[in-house]
Amino acid sequence: MSRVVWHITMSLDGFIAGPDDAMDWAFPSSGPSRIADDVMNTTGAILAGRRWHDVATAKYGGRQGIYGGKWNGPVFVLTHRPPEASADPEITFLQTSVEEAVAAGKEAADDKNLEIFGANLAAQCLDAALIDEIVVHVAPVLLGDGVRLYGVAGERRQVALERTDLGESGEQTSLRFRVTRH
Amino acid sequence: MSRVVWHITMSLDGFIAGPDDAMDWAFPSSGPSRIADDVMNTTGAILAGRRWHDVATAKYGGRQGIYGGKWNGPVFVLTHRPPEASADPEITFLQTSVEEAVAAGKEAADDKNLEIFGANLAAQCLDAALIDEIVVHVAPVLLGDGVRLYGVAGERRQVALERTDLGESGEQTSLRFRVTRH
Repeated sequence: MSRVVWHITMSLDGFIAGPDDAMDWAFPSSGPSRIADDVMNTTGAILAGRRWHDVATAKYGGRQGIYGGKWNGPVFVLTHRPPEASADPEITFLQTSVEEAVAAGKEAADDKNLEIFGANLAAQCLDAALIDEIVVHVAPVLLGDGVRLYGVAGERRQVALERTDLGESGEQTSLRFRVTRH
Repeated sequence: MSRVVWHITMSLDGFIAGPDDAMDWAFPSSGPSRIADDVMNTTGAILAGRRWHDVATAKYGGRQGIYGGKWNGPVFVLTHRPPEASADPEITFLQTSVEEAVAAGKEAADDKNLEIFGANLAAQCLDAALIDEIVVHVAPVLLGDGVRLYGVAGERRQVALERTDLGESGEQTSLRFRVTRH
């Protein structure tokens, strides 16, 4: 049974990107990661948000930049406004509901997991009770401003978690949680 | 030589209090903590912000609630508007600059550390390069809104950290950092 896993790096103060989508704070402290390898090896498909797509394509090699090119599989991007001509034929754009996008991603993941990229999409999935696990790498830095892990728009409810794994990834601290109550 | 240690519990998404200063999310997951005991045993004095004082006095026993009553020492509260009659004679109110308050606290801590309570005060101390260490207990919950760990007011600069300890405190994850660059 596919699980839906949100995989993300954040600053200690809860930002997943700095102002202007800056990610330069995240890379210097990253390193070999048992937990990230676990996630990668059990991922059958990725569902990303439009912001992830735009930033990844512009700055980090798009589809080819995922896990440094070590992972292969279908990548979906959920968006209300798919680009007319995608720069990357390996990305499939979905114009549908979050529920249907997750269902399509799980189907494509087969017996592996569906991985979620992007905080806005993940917040929508959390609100719809579609996320099973959260894997967070905490970088040793305070940013003070940027894109928040959870708090993108509107009113949020508390989401209760249970920590299921803990490890170090370079200088980052990796935490794995099961979502226990939305 | 006294160090200045900011000690705090936060949600996974970077909030140190929920809406209306709610802290009910923090307690259920707390538990025996080697790292919190380390901090308590090396603390000679505490410097808190006014919000901490007001919430602690109203809800959590004020001075007596600190470390469940297991810690003794001088407690200072930095505020522009000290109460006319304090409900707690064991708290000393300071009406001065952050720099002078920290200096007074370190003097009172003698050869032990000065512990900082409160995010607003801690942010001011960080901006003035007065914090040496940050100890954060990460509770397994997403709050979505509340008082942010770092981002109280105005523009923040990046603060670089180095993780020096990692442990579990009940169901919370405890991280200790040295501030390496303000």
